[in-house]
Amino acid sequence: MLDAEGRLRDLSGVVPDIAGDVLTNLPQIDPQGLPLVEGAPRLGPPVGRIGKFIGIGLNYLDHAAETGMAPPDHPIVFMKATSSIIGPNDTVSLPRSSRHSDWEVELGVVIGKPAKYVSEADALDHVAGYCIVNDVSERTFQAKLSGQWTKGKSCDTFGPIGPWLVTPDEVGDPQNLNLSLDLNGERMQTGHTGTMIFSVAKIIAHLTEMMSLQPGDVIATGTPPGVGMGMTPKRFLTEGDEMELRIDGLGTQRQTVARDP
Amino acid sequence: MLDAEGRLRDLSGVVPDIAGDVLTNLPQIDPQGLPLVEGAPRLGPPVGRIGKFIGIGLNYLDHAAETGMAPPDHPIVFMKATSSIIGPNDTVSLPRSSRHSDWEVELGVVIGKPAKYVSEADALDHVAGYCIVNDVSERTFQAKLSGQWTKGKSCDTFGPIGPWLVTPDEVGDPQNLNLSLDLNGERMQTGHTGTMIFSVAKIIAHLTEMMSLQPGDVIATGTPPGVGMGMTPKRFLTEGDEMELRIDGLGTQRQTVARDP
Repeated sequence: MLDAEGRLRDLSGVVPDIAGDVLTNLPQIDPQGLPLVEGAPRLGPPVGRIGKFIGIGLNYLDHAAETGMAPPDHPIVFMKATSSIIGPNDTVSLPRSSRHSDWEVELGVVIGKPAKYVSEADALDHVAGYCIVNDVSERTFQAKLSGQWTKGKSCDTFGPIGPWLVTPDEVGDPQNLNLSLDLNGERMQTGHTGTMIFSVAKIIAHLTEMMSLQPGDVIATGTPPGVGMGMTPKRFLTEGDEMELRIDGLGTQRQTVARDP
Repeated sequence: MLDAEGRLRDLSGVVPDIAGDVLTNLPQIDPQGLPLVEGAPRLGPPVGRIGKFIGIGLNYLDHAAETGMAPPDHPIVFMKATSSIIGPNDTVSLPRSSRHSDWEVELGVVIGKPAKYVSEADALDHVAGYCIVNDVSERTFQAKLSGQWTKGKSCDTFGPIGPWLVTPDEVGDPQNLNLSLDLNGERMQTGHTGTMIFSVAKIIAHLTEMMSLQPGDVIATGTPPGVGMGMTPKRFLTEGDEMELRIDGLGTQRQTVARDP
């Protein structure tokens, strides 16, 4: 946990994991009383025991345009395998046969309280906080292997989450955040959550008409323009690439790209 | 655990859950030494801590034909939310707005050992056992709400699993099993795993080119002909319906259909 001065404090003495019921109790924990963390240890994902890792597709009007697809009438919902999840600065490793892996900076929403049939007006009461998600996507796996999108979204290491789970009181309006992604120091994606087709509240309400959401479920709410697939010529991840992702108030992620041996 | 006489024995004194590493040790446990279970308690799903609940679509040639879709070139892969999972005889509760929920008897494959880049020849070494899965599917959610299939596959209670996890030594060839589903005592689905387009081994090999599989992951391998969507006129689940599913050597599931209040 970060304290008011931005120093890392050790939560392990007060919570078993940042998961389950702990998620709604985080604002009650005062970091000042916790031990300082020495050095700069690896950060894991800021949420544990993620049951569902849900993705929303084509949720920014300008991104829908760059993919050549019409804006959807309802949120496009897909799943990322929870086995794809890594820490915010861990290595993204391309599958052996991948030639078309792409980046996607996204606002991640972490559910804190169980939600079923919740209205748009009540939806944000079920949110424990927000985080950055890189919804790394293999475009050939996603679209050209007869399958559903989940094939290209679920590769191991394709789900960096973090660095921080930031509680709603610190984030303010989730529809007023700037997002960006740099590749090797060059700006690729620039966006603003105000241009989402379906707001965070609308997405939660829609999902809970079909399935319950539980504490620790994570929703990646779609990506703004600037993915490699949308460029001319198209551009995809290669070994040694460096991705840097930022969202207002949620910190920075940095991943180096490798390939499975 | 069932003993040689088919009596239920209590595993709780020897394993914490039928999950994780326990899955590969099940054949070493001798049920004769375990306490007999009294009465007829509710059966939960026979696998715990399911990380991924993966579905394969259109994997029987004759089922592909009844849906009007061409047989796929690669396995169609989608995800069912793990929050859809219930015990084999629990109630299936339709979402409030559901009007087109359908049944799908399927052979479930439970992973026992971690698998990544496994060959078709080695794939079955990673299987802990087999079970019945009812891949209950809301056809409007699945196909008509702009989303991926996962919307119609992930509703709460849409994933009955069990009653038994049957180890590979007792199942024999997974491509030589009869499947059936009765609705209110009338036969709807009849199939044989020998007519799968992609065998269990091929499915595992294909998946592990993209993502790792872990102990407790469950793969529902597709359904044979006879779903309600394929009938003339189409027929869908309504409150009070009774489904009964059978697969050779894997037992029987029975669910009553209700609706979310």
